[in-house]
Amino acid sequence: MTTTGPAGPAPRRRRGRPGYDQTAILRAAVELFNRKGYDATSVGDLAKELGLTKPAIYHHVTSKEQLLGQALDDALDELTAVVTEASREGAGGAGNAGGTAYGRLRDVVRRSVEVLVAHQPSVTLLLRVRGNSEVELAALERRRWLDDRLAALVADAVAEGALRDDVPPALVSRLLFGMVNSLVEWYRPDGAYDTAAVAGAITAIAFDGLARHEC
Amino acid sequence: MTTTGPAGPAPRRRRGRPGYDQTAILRAAVELFNRKGYDATSVGDLAKELGLTKPAIYHHVTSKEQLLGQALDDALDELTAVVTEASREGAGGAGNAGGTAYGRLRDVVRRSVEVLVAHQPSVTLLLRVRGNSEVELAALERRRWLDDRLAALVADAVAEGALRDDVPPALVSRLLFGMVNSLVEWYRPDGAYDTAAVAGAITAIAFDGLARHEC
Repeated sequence: MTTTGPAGPAPRRRRGRPGYDQTAILRAAVELFNRKGYDATSVGDLAKELGLTKPAIYHHVTSKEQLLGQALDDALDELTAVVTEASREGAGGAGNAGGTAYGRLRDVVRRSVEVLVAHQPSVTLLLRVRGNSEVELAALERRRWLDDRLAALVADAVAEGALRDDVPPALVSRLLFGMVNSLVEWYRPDGAYDTAAVAGAITAIAFDGLARHEC
Repeated sequence: MTTTGPAGPAPRRRRGRPGYDQTAILRAAVELFNRKGYDATSVGDLAKELGLTKPAIYHHVTSKEQLLGQALDDALDELTAVVTEASREGAGGAGNAGGTAYGRLRDVVRRSVEVLVAHQPSVTLLLRVRGNSEVELAALERRRWLDDRLAALVADAVAEGALRDDVPPALVSRLLFGMVNSLVEWYRPDGAYDTAAVAGAITAIAFDGLARHEC
């Protein structure tokens, strides 16, 4: 299973010295892919960044694409766990507030924000995937599955009468999670807003709206 | 001045034949930058894509960076015009509905959607800029100005009592325009939703909220 807690402390930088493990190499690779773009990054660039030789990198990983695949799986596994749970609770469950599609939709928004913040580098990479390789196409396929499940959850919440029905559920889903995903462009863990503040703001805006209601 | 109308028809593809002008080269360059990433794209790639020689490209443009700068200016000029107008109307203007900060904020959301759809390739490029060159840093500086003006407009709408005051205006602004900007990732002009439908959905979600109100 997966955790949505914050990632552990960054490994000590030991530039030019041995002791890198695969996790540290993956972390550096994802950072470099996000900064320079995946296609523009070579294993040589990664070696240089880490102060290692290319053979030292290849001691731990078989290819640049393997690192991409691991990073994308990291993000996708977390998001899949969240969406699967949100989809599952609906089956049969009634009586408790969390059992409604509306409750589960609010919950999946909040939990998606948590995953995004805890796994920001790999989610950022995932959101920039363009489908230029087999690994990327497989990731896009998994993203489509997530999008479909989320759209279905929105449709369920409309069907149970909790959400307005004048905007197509598939469009609502894209815009709602587009707002969530836009976090990767600016969110900083050491910035002005913690995860709960951001999740609260998104649910407040999306579900209740910005306008002051007359009632 | 600028227009927010749709771009003209695509130029006929005349692969390997003369007759490309700078506009057609710019259009192809932006498409290639978005597909492969700017850093991973060379003038040689662009020449190959167009079926031209590199000297033929250099007959029209001085560098890859010049093309990037032109594309970013295209997007930024449009967005700046929209935001400047939305900021300006507030000065003094009262009595008409459009004169309120709230009215201008709703309007700037709608007009941003129109710019994004009409200039999707260059706005996509703008949103992916990471600051790896002088041209990119200048674009980021202009984006910051836009972000500041939009946050100020949200703050004005809160101050006039039209918007809820329990979410920081700067956070509202980021999330609201994050939702707008997320369009570049999936919107297709020939898809299921026209510009008005998308703009209407965004304003409905953000200002009025998805939840059915009891009143």
